[in-house]
Amino acid sequence: MTIYYNLSEEYWADKCRRPYFPAVDLQNTVKHIIERVRTKGDSALLDFAFQFDGATLQQLKVTENEIENATKQVSTALKDAIGVAINNIRIFHKTQQLDEIKTETTKGVLCWRRQVAIENVGLYIPGGTAPLFSTLIMLAIPAQIAGCERIVLCTPPDKKGIIDPAILYTAGWLGITEIYKTGGAQAIAAMAYGTDTIKKVHKIFGPGNQYVTKAKEIIQQDGISIDLPAGPSEVLVIADETADADFVAADLLSQAEHGTDSQVVLLTTEANIAEKVQKALKDQISDLPRASIAQKSLEGSFCLVLPTIEKCFHFSNMYAPEHLILALQNPERFVDRIVNAGSVFLGHYSCESAGDYASGTNHTLPTNGLSRSYSGVSLDSFVKKITFQHISAEGLQNLGKTIEVMAEAEQLLAHKNAVSIRLKKLSV
Amino acid sequence: MTIYYNLSEEYWADKCRRPYFPAVDLQNTVKHIIERVRTKGDSALLDFAFQFDGATLQQLKVTENEIENATKQVSTALKDAIGVAINNIRIFHKTQQLDEIKTETTKGVLCWRRQVAIENVGLYIPGGTAPLFSTLIMLAIPAQIAGCERIVLCTPPDKKGIIDPAILYTAGWLGITEIYKTGGAQAIAAMAYGTDTIKKVHKIFGPGNQYVTKAKEIIQQDGISIDLPAGPSEVLVIADETADADFVAADLLSQAEHGTDSQVVLLTTEANIAEKVQKALKDQISDLPRASIAQKSLEGSFCLVLPTIEKCFHFSNMYAPEHLILALQNPERFVDRIVNAGSVFLGHYSCESAGDYASGTNHTLPTNGLSRSYSGVSLDSFVKKITFQHISAEGLQNLGKTIEVMAEAEQLLAHKNAVSIRLKKLSV
Repeated sequence: MTIYYNLSEEYWADKCRRPYFPAVDLQNTVKHIIERVRTKGDSALLDFAFQFDGATLQQLKVTENEIENATKQVSTALKDAIGVAINNIRIFHKTQQLDEIKTETTKGVLCWRRQVAIENVGLYIPGGTAPLFSTLIMLAIPAQIAGCERIVLCTPPDKKGIIDPAILYTAGWLGITEIYKTGGAQAIAAMAYGTDTIKKVHKIFGPGNQYVTKAKEIIQQDGISIDLPAGPSEVLVIADETADADFVAADLLSQAEHGTDSQVVLLTTEANIAEKVQKALKDQISDLPRASIAQKSLEGSFCLVLPTIEKCFHFSNMYAPEHLILALQNPERFVDRIVNAGSVFLGHYSCESAGDYASGTNHTLPTNGLSRSYSGVSLDSFVKKITFQHISAEGLQNLGKTIEVMAEAEQLLAHKNAVSIRLKKLSV
Repeated sequence: MTIYYNLSEEYWADKCRRPYFPAVDLQNTVKHIIERVRTKGDSALLDFAFQFDGATLQQLKVTENEIENATKQVSTALKDAIGVAINNIRIFHKTQQLDEIKTETTKGVLCWRRQVAIENVGLYIPGGTAPLFSTLIMLAIPAQIAGCERIVLCTPPDKKGIIDPAILYTAGWLGITEIYKTGGAQAIAAMAYGTDTIKKVHKIFGPGNQYVTKAKEIIQQDGISIDLPAGPSEVLVIADETADADFVAADLLSQAEHGTDSQVVLLTTEANIAEKVQKALKDQISDLPRASIAQKSLEGSFCLVLPTIEKCFHFSNMYAPEHLILALQNPERFVDRIVNAGSVFLGHYSCESAGDYASGTNHTLPTNGLSRSYSGVSLDSFVKKITFQHISAEGLQNLGKTIEVMAEAEQLLAHKNAVSIRLKKLSV
């Protein structure tokens, strides 16, 4: 990780640009997969499971038996941990409910909003070596609090046609029973357009590889909404003289191990801390099973030593990180300066992995600078906020003239007439 | 408007499909426009203003003088009406502020959310015969309540290089001064990527023709967010025996006059009402300046006479209308049955045009069935909700084991280590 001392502001915009990994053009490949799922339905999904996952499946849907078996394979320690995480995430996401406030904007004109669940949602959890049951928790909990009627889970099977027990246990514990063994672009297509077995959903959530990302991009153009545009994960740490270099290095590495395209950034006022962190990174990385991934990620990462904490926040807001860690004394003082960030971790004991798993906040967050305009997944992501208005005869008499004048100025006379015809009947 | 009596449910899905208007493939044309703006900047915008709007502009930015002149040209009646509308819309959107609630999910683990304004937002208002100053109000008010630092307005000039006075007056009244004379795909490109004169924004709002729609779709792939996918406007009315056929017909026409691709739907339990509305439509349409547009729209529209109000709501939720009018006695009884809708109008005096202009609710709403998963524009659209967590040493001691176990199960050892290294220092 290169350290830059007092880098002039003219170079900041350049540093805020994320490392560029030229994407393979998957448009045609993914369109072809989607088309096959749309025309061949379940049989395409079974074919793809064989082709991409090496699995010969008898059926797509996971059975109750499989969920029961998975339960037996998960350790008590993991079950307990999942229980604690679910509890915290539930508590925090429950605070996100919308209170219905009826407001009288003009006498006789009542307006309010209502939070109504999206009926059908699809959750995608990738396969591969690490089973991301934590992401399942992060998506399923707000979906359940919202009251989504149908929560569908798609995840690819292994070669034996089996889903990771931790994922099945988590789903079972949460009462999610509509689980299908399908992955990649084909799973996204199935949830978007439906097959005989998998009925279509209205919104699709979850991470995935570049096929999944491309498929989500394509189906979004077709009116199926998605959680967030995907991008490599990232963290930015702001550290002052009170920061513990070992803690900071551990946080940077916990981000760096995600993927070679992850970016980690350290901003500090202390050259001394920058150098200590540099050293701690070297010490800690060697013990990691994913050291080579973390190493690559660090090569695309950097540290800026800046003259003041104010400058650090200025840079951080320009960069707009997914995760922002404030390794600062009394970090609450700085909360007002944060303009762009996905999730913020205050103080020396708020490590990012706490938010990744169990503090209660959601870990599905805007990457790649999107925290300038996007929020992370929350209860909001699983509901629509429908507006209501009730206008009494008196209300329309109070507001009618206003509407008539405005509609006429926009040359929409039928709009005006909808008011005039009512006012006329009221006046007789 | 065709009336169907007791249409069997097997045909409902077909009726819920919106009329299909094959889109001209504008991908290449719009990409070319965007590319020219990216490479040539302001000079491309001036060229396009000449080419598409027939205007020879000296500069893109509207001057203070122009705003002052516009103020003189707007009637007092319209000024008063705009004032009333702004007041109501402000009152309602102010109720959408998020209270910051700090929640302790586990002892020592504090989580909360904060609403932070998107710094730079761009509002697009189309030109043409009708100046949509109402849309400017609907977008600018929540942007201002959110606290967006920079609110940019782009709208095309007429042949003389002039912006409609009602739009300029409204902008001036709201204190919006960054107004540019540019329209179409080129305006969207300028706000997305920036030129010398128009600095780039982070999110773009507003309606437009198919060039604008396509441009918004393209720039969204590039990480600039947009308000909502565009589609033709629509209304669905549910009427019982207490409905006034003249009112219902006026509401249907106020939607139908928007465009030939607008769809209006009437659901009623009373054959009698259906037929009366049919007649009232004929009576009212002839007086409208936009009669031919409304007529075309009605041809693509329909009425269903259904046996019960329950069936009407069932169909309405399947259709997922942008606007839903309940021309029913005691409509409040039915609020719980509404699952999919953009904005709802309760009772015989709540006409859609009230919400279009002045009741207080927003008129930028999800069309084309998107109300199944999208909300209309609100204060939420102009903010990010950033999550925060503060974990004390005690908090990490309480939660540490949980994180370690979960991270290990996901084979993310650096995630685990970020906790272990802290717990270790705490235990000495």
